Amino acid sequence: MSQTDMSIFENLESEVRSYCRSFPTVFTKAKGYKMWDEKEREYIDFFSGAGALNYGHNDPMMKAKLVDYILSDGITHSLDMATSPKAEFLTTFNEVILKPRNLDYKVMFPGPTGTNTVESALKLARKVTGRTDIISFTNGFHGMTIGALSVTGNAFKRKGAGIPLQNVVTMPYDSFVNDNLDTLEYLERFLEDGGSGVEIPAAMILETVQGEGGINAASFEWLQRIEQICKRWGILLIVDDVQAGVGRTGTFFSFEKAGIKPDIVCMSKSIGGYGLPLAITLIRPELDIWAPGEHNGTFRGNNHAFITATAALNYWKDASFEKDIQEKSEKIYAFLESIVAKYPELNGEVRGRGFMVGIATDIDGLASSVAEEAFQRGLIMETSGPKDEVFKLFPPLIIDDEGLEKGFEIIEDSVKAVLGARELVIS
Amino acid sequence: MSQTDMSIFENLESEVRSYCRSFPTVFTKAKGYKMWDEKEREYIDFFSGAGALNYGHNDPMMKAKLVDYILSDGITHSLDMATSPKAEFLTTFNEVILKPRNLDYKVMFPGPTGTNTVESALKLARKVTGRTDIISFTNGFHGMTIGALSVTGNAFKRKGAGIPLQNVVTMPYDSFVNDNLDTLEYLERFLEDGGSGVEIPAAMILETVQGEGGINAASFEWLQRIEQICKRWGILLIVDDVQAGVGRTGTFFSFEKAGIKPDIVCMSKSIGGYGLPLAITLIRPELDIWAPGEHNGTFRGNNHAFITATAALNYWKDASFEKDIQEKSEKIYAFLESIVAKYPELNGEVRGRGFMVGIATDIDGLASSVAEEAFQRGLIMETSGPKDEVFKLFPPLIIDDEGLEKGFEIIEDSVKAVLGARELVIS
Amino acid sequence: MSQTDMSIFENLESEVRSYCRSFPTVFTKAKGYKMWDEKEREYIDFFSGAGALNYGHNDPMMKAKLVDYILSDGITHSLDMATSPKAEFLTTFNEVILKPRNLDYKVMFPGPTGTNTVESALKLARKVTGRTDIISFTNGFHGMTIGALSVTGNAFKRKGAGIPLQNVVTMPYDSFVNDNLDTLEYLERFLEDGGSGVEIPAAMILETVQGEGGINAASFEWLQRIEQICKRWGILLIVDDVQAGVGRTGTFFSFEKAGIKPDIVCMSKSIGGYGLPLAITLIRPELDIWAPGEHNGTFRGNNHAFITATAALNYWKDASFEKDIQEKSEKIYAFLESIVAKYPELNGEVRGRGFMVGIATDIDGLASSVAEEAFQRGLIMETSGPKDEVFKLFPPLIIDDEGLEKGFEIIEDSVKAVLGARELVIS
Amino acid sequence: MSQTDMSIFENLESEVRSYCRSFPTVFTKAKGYKMWDEKEREYIDFFSGAGALNYGHNDPMMKAKLVDYILSDGITHSLDMATSPKAEFLTTFNEVILKPRNLDYKVMFPGPTGTNTVESALKLARKVTGRTDIISFTNGFHGMTIGALSVTGNAFKRKGAGIPLQNVVTMPYDSFVNDNLDTLEYLERFLEDGGSGVEIPAAMILETVQGEGGINAASFEWLQRIEQICKRWGILLIVDDVQAGVGRTGTFFSFEKAGIKPDIVCMSKSIGGYGLPLAITLIRPELDIWAPGEHNGTFRGNNHAFITATAALNYWKDASFEKDIQEKSEKIYAFLESIVAKYPELNGEVRGRGFMVGIATDIDGLASSVAEEAFQRGLIMETSGPKDEVFKLFPPLIIDDEGLEKGFEIIEDSVKAVLGARELVIS
Repeated sequence: MSQTDMSIFENLESEVRSYCRSFPTVFTKAKGYKMWDEKEREYIDFFSGAGALNYGHNDPMMKAKLVDYILSDGITHSLDMATSPKAEFLTTFNEVILKPRNLDYKVMFPGPTGTNTVESALKLARKVTGRTDIISFTNGFHGMTIGALSVTGNAFKRKGAGIPLQNVVTMPYDSFVNDNLDTLEYLERFLEDGGSGVEIPAAMILETVQGEGGINAASFEWLQRIEQICKRWGILLIVDDVQAGVGRTGTFFSFEKAGIKPDIVCMSKSIGGYGLPLAITLIRPELDIWAPGEHNGTFRGNNHAFITATAALNYWKDASFEKDIQEKSEKIYAFLESIVAKYPELNGEVRGRGFMVGIATDIDGLASSVAEEAFQRGLIMETSGPKDEVFKLFPPLIIDDEGLEKGFEIIEDSVKAVLGARELVIS
Repeated sequence: MSQTDMSIFENLESEVRSYCRSFPTVFTKAKGYKMWDEKEREYIDFFSGAGALNYGHNDPMMKAKLVDYILSDGITHSLDMATSPKAEFLTTFNEVILKPRNLDYKVMFPGPTGTNTVESALKLARKVTGRTDIISFTNGFHGMTIGALSVTGNAFKRKGAGIPLQNVVTMPYDSFVNDNLDTLEYLERFLEDGGSGVEIPAAMILETVQGEGGINAASFEWLQRIEQICKRWGILLIVDDVQAGVGRTGTFFSFEKAGIKPDIVCMSKSIGGYGLPLAITLIRPELDIWAPGEHNGTFRGNNHAFITATAALNYWKDASFEKDIQEKSEKIYAFLESIVAKYPELNGEVRGRGFMVGIATDIDGLASSVAEEAFQRGLIMETSGPKDEVFKLFPPLIIDDEGLEKGFEIIEDSVKAVLGARELVIS
Repeated sequence: MSQTDMSIFENLESEVRSYCRSFPTVFTKAKGYKMWDEKEREYIDFFSGAGALNYGHNDPMMKAKLVDYILSDGITHSLDMATSPKAEFLTTFNEVILKPRNLDYKVMFPGPTGTNTVESALKLARKVTGRTDIISFTNGFHGMTIGALSVTGNAFKRKGAGIPLQNVVTMPYDSFVNDNLDTLEYLERFLEDGGSGVEIPAAMILETVQGEGGINAASFEWLQRIEQICKRWGILLIVDDVQAGVGRTGTFFSFEKAGIKPDIVCMSKSIGGYGLPLAITLIRPELDIWAPGEHNGTFRGNNHAFITATAALNYWKDASFEKDIQEKSEKIYAFLESIVAKYPELNGEVRGRGFMVGIATDIDGLASSVAEEAFQRGLIMETSGPKDEVFKLFPPLIIDDEGLEKGFEIIEDSVKAVLGARELVIS
Repeated sequence: MSQTDMSIFENLESEVRSYCRSFPTVFTKAKGYKMWDEKEREYIDFFSGAGALNYGHNDPMMKAKLVDYILSDGITHSLDMATSPKAEFLTTFNEVILKPRNLDYKVMFPGPTGTNTVESALKLARKVTGRTDIISFTNGFHGMTIGALSVTGNAFKRKGAGIPLQNVVTMPYDSFVNDNLDTLEYLERFLEDGGSGVEIPAAMILETVQGEGGINAASFEWLQRIEQICKRWGILLIVDDVQAGVGRTGTFFSFEKAGIKPDIVCMSKSIGGYGLPLAITLIRPELDIWAPGEHNGTFRGNNHAFITATAALNYWKDASFEKDIQEKSEKIYAFLESIVAKYPELNGEVRGRGFMVGIATDIDGLASSVAEEAFQRGLIMETSGPKDEVFKLFPPLIIDDEGLEKGFEIIEDSVKAVLGARELVIS
């Protein structure tokens, strides 16, 4: 195969492109936790398509089912007509995921992206309650369309709207102000005081671990109190599990260990299994008061994704997968703790939960340098947080020990290289 | 294969589902202009996935390329990293589509749905101009997320937002008031009068033929004058070609025959070729002032769709495809005219352009009855317009004469059946 | 008395001041239709405090009552406590104004300015209907606070808000597009078409003659049709009679001759009689669903204004005042017609109704020059319209023939002078 | 004089009326700190027109000047033309108030109400900064028009808008959450974190003591830190001194003792001296970038109020008035402390500063009962706070010791009566 000229992207693609700037090569092939570029260079993937590839690239079992389906001329695009792959997905999801967790949700298929499921959740919450406001949280990230962007904290992204973003009040996420300030005492004062300027909202929307916002993990106790507050005030609780869901934090839903039951759950990214566009909105049955077609979209019926999504649920048929994630995530955590301890110059803090972790450092530009260095050494990893202050480890859940260790090695080398270079500059 | 119980959808899927109510069967297989359900009943498809399947179902050439790609472990999901299928799509799109039409656009990949490309276009227009308002048009349909919904006319859909929709002024589309009232004279008075309450907007957004809004086709003269007005006032012109594009009206872009050059073009639906989620936003190069990552999304890099989208462009390498659409669309138009003439009780009016046509009738519920009747007879067709007053013919562009004629026959039979039944009721 | 240094205003008062720039002298005294400045120069007042001085300056009968009241230590400021002057005003207003006109309204006292009564009317309309949108009209002017500004057309004033103005749709006023285009056919299409993007609003708000917007008088037929449309769609009709009311167009309410009965009427300016701050909102009793204190303000109980407002109602106890206005307004109209005929270079058009009239000219800057010239010659008159294209005759209703004729003379001299000067420049 | 039938108000005035329900009698006369009703019953005024009558009723010196002016046919209504009383007010205000306090402000005359000055301040702040958001504080009260209402905390009042109130973020006022939580640490976190969802606002607006919101007094240290935060982030500081200004808290401006210099100050209520409608907006000269007429209104030139406002400034020509307020306010405070100590059943807390004080009690309905009881005994007093949990002492600043003591006696009797009645009910 001839080499692709990178100038194609510069000349023909919009300036908005970004990851191709961080990872400036042309990718061609991928398998499991590995990717290859045109020069056949191999990369370890500690990025997982920003959480869309929790099962790794091109899982063989899903691949087989997908190719079979395509070869049989199975229906590809179906809007929200009934198809057999959709029936199978609904049934399997109910059997494998919902019932064993004692959860009862209706499944809505919005457009196949995270921002679409969030928009559908916000609309439904407003319809159910008749209220207009939503409470979102600092450093929350929920999507780029105007409704989802309104509940997103990031100033750069918000400014991109070009209009004031409305009908939203941002409250402090767990530990936002400092570790001692109880952000929920604060929040509840606003709800209970009739002069606070804050209306009882239709819903609160939150991520249990904030992926884009800096790998901030809310404590289980904080989540439980949020649920209680929502119940006390008749506010719907929406968990955006687009990034933290599908095993990323160690359980299928990120909120399982906190023991809470959200009214609405937003899922996308890895729900399709193979990296194909899919999103679902889970709705407590009593709240499913949509009129037919009240929210719609062309690609709600992506049957290729139904096929792979159903296949992916095999991973969850017994407890072994969860157990495996658990064990490996402890290794990752231990590795990060060791880095922080070993390199005090990092001024590092380990953040996150499960396979959704990273190191925050307040040294300007440091996290980005580590990620760049790692890419040079064959590892793909991104940064996160309002100032890109965190380098973020997001390996696929199916990674093996060899992969993890190779990755760790590259990261440690990169940290060393960056710290070394800094020292040279300073001295 | 065992039969799927339709109650699966009733029990597990949200009430928002809608097409499965109009077409109450479980589809399994599709090819070209035909679909089959679980009972192996065959249907002629005059619906084309609401415009996402202009090339019909499971085109063999695209299928082959897609399966090859999957088997080779080609990268599936890439966000906006550089990949070889993306490079190929960009190059081919530029060579086959843009250059021959003397068009110069940068290509942006927003999330892979129509509403996503619209949201990106509105954001960019606001950024470029520093203004907040957008002018949209009556009965325009642009999507379901809050930004796109704000420029959508339909009252039922707008109410679904649950919040007042802002920063938009709706102006009358061509012939909205009546055939004599010049809607642009009206529009321009608002722009020129400093006391009109209407600000000079960032952009105007429109469809050249309104698909969901009732198959209203703007005249070429109207479109040309819109372009002139936009130039005169420094307003960006956004054409939403999500439904009318990719050959649906007879040319690749729906605006070609009008001779206009929009500043921004929104495409989705059939751009992916095979019914896979993809969307692009075309941007006049001078306007491409996005900051990297200012608008993003997880499924911008759907490489399966790049593969099929590139393959689909083969249809456009010479003029034969366009010529073929042209010829067949004349047949369709002639058929519709004959129906209107033959059945004056319909009180029918033929609307539309190319393969985006229908018959409007002001008899309440009539269009829906015709579509229902047609489904009983093995033809899939939907209705359109604020009161569902149009039955809408949307066959795939690759349909052959046999398919068309079978379809016509079913439609005529359905019209007869419905009118006959009505007569019985009335008399 | 020593002379006031005009630099006091330049040094100490905000740049926002404006009339003192058009009329650069320091006024000290006024009586009837005359004003005097510190240099004891006399001016004829064809401005009437922008409609707040319909009874002229310092009416002797009101003055006597006011001074008596003050000397007796009558209560001055009472919020919305009960006071005897307020009781007297309510009773007299009911007996002298409402009953003889067969009108039944509850009287609300908002803050004592025009913008306050408009804000109260909009709030109430939204509360009564549960809807958010208001339809306003091109070149309408309703006030400077955010609610009232949202329904005001003027682009310069709107921009002053510094935020997008929302929840309002502007529709074309009578003859806005041109004399042939029926603006109500247009408006009603928007209401009846479910895809128009325009919701059924809470209310329409309009002036029967637009004072600030260019002295545009809606025809009685147009106003009657507006009322019918409002009834048909369950929309409240708010007439803003702040400037056109209290006799300015020939009857107490400006809408009497059209035979319509608005749901809510906003009054201020001359309602206080003496130029003292007062505003009232008249509400059809069935709509008076305010909770106590739901809208309030400190200066709702301006008892000095109650005293003069009650005294002013004497003018309306029999038909003679109306008859007198009628006769004099015919003289004014005839004068303006003669000017337009005699000076075709003006390219003038007579506009308005009653004592609310002017000449529009499309020659840039001409109307302002005439007003400036008139001031030099001892007449106070202002301009109006989005481009200040109208010079506006607004004498007090109590002016006598001598005053009118002096005024006419000055205006004609000013027109001649300006046209002469222009000719010199051109030739 | 014959007695006024209270049914006049019930029949003719809107349901929105409120103080006439708390004080159900018809007032006729007033002098100093006393009011009389039609039955010649005397009341002690501990209400002062909600702060509009700081100099008491019908001050003899102002009265004389006002009557002289009216008798001389001084101009009454002047919009923003130059008049001699306005020149005199500007000059005197500058000499007596601004210069001695080392303050440099331009004076703007908006419409003559509190809400008007607030709206003008918000507009200007947005214009100067080019930003849209305003930070307001919990339990702030700034007025009833949409702009001012947006920055007002009270839920009942906000709901009255009938539309979502936008472009505002409410932050916690001093001690809002509890006495230990530092609300400014919280606020500043939101400003400094780029992911907080809170934009750097155009301005912060606050009252130094919240009158309507429950007599909450911010500490001087809190106010100083607010000023520092505003400076650090380039945010304008607007002090709404409509109620707390003109001596109410012990100094002319309420912020003097805190040592801060706001960018914009809003004044109304007592600025007119005699209870006549007047408002001014004080603007740091560099910020006075208004275009002429960009914000206007009919009653900006209330010359009667200029006359009395100028006369009222005599009180401030030396330090004796301030000293006198100081002394008396200590008495008031001591009295309240004694009540709280003596009646522990009240569960009372003394709040406020200067002549703007009250007792908060968390016993439901208690504060209202005390105020009702006091009215029965001839004292006028109102309640405040989101749950009317405070009875509020607001005597005119000119009250003498005799008046104060009579008032105290009535209050103590009322407290006793209410507590006694409660005991009976409970036991």
